[in-house]
Amino acid sequence: MFKFKISYKSQTTRARLGRIITHRGVIETPVFMPVGTQATVKSLFPEILKELGYRIILSNTYHLYLRPGADLISNLGGLHNFMQWERHILTDSGGFQVYSLAQFRKITEEGVIFKSHIDGSEHFFTPIKSLEVQKKLGSDIVMVLDTCIPYPCSYEETRHLTELTHRWAIESKKYWQRHPTETQALFGIVQGGMFEDLRKWSTEFLVELGFDGYAIGGLSVGEPFELRNTMIEVNTALLPEDKPRYLMGVGTPLDIVEAVIRGVDMFDCVLPTRNARRGTVFTSKGLLNIRNAEYKKDESPLDENCSCYTCRKFSRAYLRHLLHTKELLAYPLLTLHNLFYYAKLMEQIRKAILEDSLIELKKELEGYYNNSQKGG
Amino acid sequence: MFKFKISYKSQTTRARLGRIITHRGVIETPVFMPVGTQATVKSLFPEILKELGYRIILSNTYHLYLRPGADLISNLGGLHNFMQWERHILTDSGGFQVYSLAQFRKITEEGVIFKSHIDGSEHFFTPIKSLEVQKKLGSDIVMVLDTCIPYPCSYEETRHLTELTHRWAIESKKYWQRHPTETQALFGIVQGGMFEDLRKWSTEFLVELGFDGYAIGGLSVGEPFELRNTMIEVNTALLPEDKPRYLMGVGTPLDIVEAVIRGVDMFDCVLPTRNARRGTVFTSKGLLNIRNAEYKKDESPLDENCSCYTCRKFSRAYLRHLLHTKELLAYPLLTLHNLFYYAKLMEQIRKAILEDSLIELKKELEGYYNNSQKGG
Repeated sequence: MFKFKISYKSQTTRARLGRIITHRGVIETPVFMPVGTQATVKSLFPEILKELGYRIILSNTYHLYLRPGADLISNLGGLHNFMQWERHILTDSGGFQVYSLAQFRKITEEGVIFKSHIDGSEHFFTPIKSLEVQKKLGSDIVMVLDTCIPYPCSYEETRHLTELTHRWAIESKKYWQRHPTETQALFGIVQGGMFEDLRKWSTEFLVELGFDGYAIGGLSVGEPFELRNTMIEVNTALLPEDKPRYLMGVGTPLDIVEAVIRGVDMFDCVLPTRNARRGTVFTSKGLLNIRNAEYKKDESPLDENCSCYTCRKFSRAYLRHLLHTKELLAYPLLTLHNLFYYAKLMEQIRKAILEDSLIELKKELEGYYNNSQKGG
Repeated sequence: MFKFKISYKSQTTRARLGRIITHRGVIETPVFMPVGTQATVKSLFPEILKELGYRIILSNTYHLYLRPGADLISNLGGLHNFMQWERHILTDSGGFQVYSLAQFRKITEEGVIFKSHIDGSEHFFTPIKSLEVQKKLGSDIVMVLDTCIPYPCSYEETRHLTELTHRWAIESKKYWQRHPTETQALFGIVQGGMFEDLRKWSTEFLVELGFDGYAIGGLSVGEPFELRNTMIEVNTALLPEDKPRYLMGVGTPLDIVEAVIRGVDMFDCVLPTRNARRGTVFTSKGLLNIRNAEYKKDESPLDENCSCYTCRKFSRAYLRHLLHTKELLAYPLLTLHNLFYYAKLMEQIRKAILEDSLIELKKELEGYYNNSQKGG
């Protein structure tokens, strides 16, 4: 079962409130998905993610395929059981990591040949292979394999890679029809680079094929903020109202609000978790790097307005000491705080949709995050 | 307030059940103290230590003095507040780390000159300086500065270093009398190396001076297991019944039982926490290294007989995957398990004292731990 129901539509923007309903429960949208690359959201017990209110996380097919392997996870009862997370999991197709992490070999009509970034072993990922791996993992939302389009990229090359994405989407859809499943939803991924006509073409093509949801791919790759927002608008104008829309790899709080205004429902990003491990935390007054010397003797919490466990208990001075001395406790404490911030942000966003105050929220965030910050 | 009450004495061994009572509450003895070197028991939230039942931890004066500094901790309300651990803390004198970690310079009649292992800065630790630092930290049990005697060591050198320890103990006692405190107890440390007559002399000397408790120092430095046990016996025969006895830096489950049989009440050791981070876990059937390939597909828990969070939830295969991929979650999960094991071990030991079955427990542990394993 995979249902998406819109419960409220903003009158002044394209934003919408919705609910994804599966056998695992309900996900309120717009939603943010923490990244749990290797079957763990780095440093956190799954119980903490639950306490923070998260209903869905993302995990990376490329990493799990290489280590510990999809068959192993399948034999141990699937990814949910392996990592002891009984709520939703979305897995990506593995494509992005092949392009960004692997010793990339060659993209062919059939798929991608690559060498593992861990041991150099050679692998071949096809659209069907990616789905097979994700079936073994047993995630709730499965992504089709797509091509990654660099930025900048010529029109011709973008068109070619988008067309390849479409052919792979057809193959994926056919495979999915031959191997139907009640418990996994399949999302298509729109490409088209930074060209409006190609984005339109890609959106219409994917929608015609028909998927349970649609991802907006190929953004947050270094393009200007305004260009990204234009591309999102092109996509959401053509995507069906009754299917969830997922903007991959985005972003900062401001990025997320901008995309929600344009009608996006789902997000994932390493920003809150990766930033945390580097000492950069999100607060009600913007970013703060706890490594800075000015916090050495600071007995206040990370954020006076935050009620997370870390802020209720620990001083900036203590957290700085932990990071400074590379103590392992630093990472879960700071990660918890940042994911608490993102959970509250999404609550705020959902409330603002209902109260028609998204633009005010956006203006408030603009005071703390400027558009030049990279979201991906 | 610092009281020690013996509630039960074994009829067949020197073992005793006791209670240390302070304004922070009660500590049942024999007790094991997890090591929280830099104001954190590595990777664990303080709440987890509480859930595991720990009433006291050890923290290292040398480390805290260098980073973040005793004045800083004092200004932030003391070590308990800094690390958000409201139960007991014992701090060591800093001496052992000066000898083992610092770029050691020189031992004089007055104290130890050393260079920081972090930045090479020069420092001078005297008996009074160590107490001043520990006063600033605000620990509940304060240790006097002693000398570290290597193994092996000549009789003359051992006698000399033991005598210096005694002079420092006198200075410490005098300082403590000039600066009385209601909330901190002071423990003396017996030295004497591996010579029975020097151990006797040191014990009698320290007892004559009078402390709130006595540590048995200078053991677990590479000496044979039997020799260590003999030295412990020499000490406990002469230590007063009504004061707690603390064997520093020991050890394996078997080491601990052997020492309890000889009348020791308190223990600390990095073994459960450090081992955990290396993948070595304590189980009801002895040690197991989860890194081993044989556990790759193993869906059983670390220990079938363990009811800790880690064993209730996660498979060996998952824990091996986390360690193998250097995922941060590995460390709290494995540390939690090992500290759960040690907490249960101490419960078992206390029960065995009451039931007069310590020798049986020792024999059981001998099946899993041999005497050649280093405890320190």
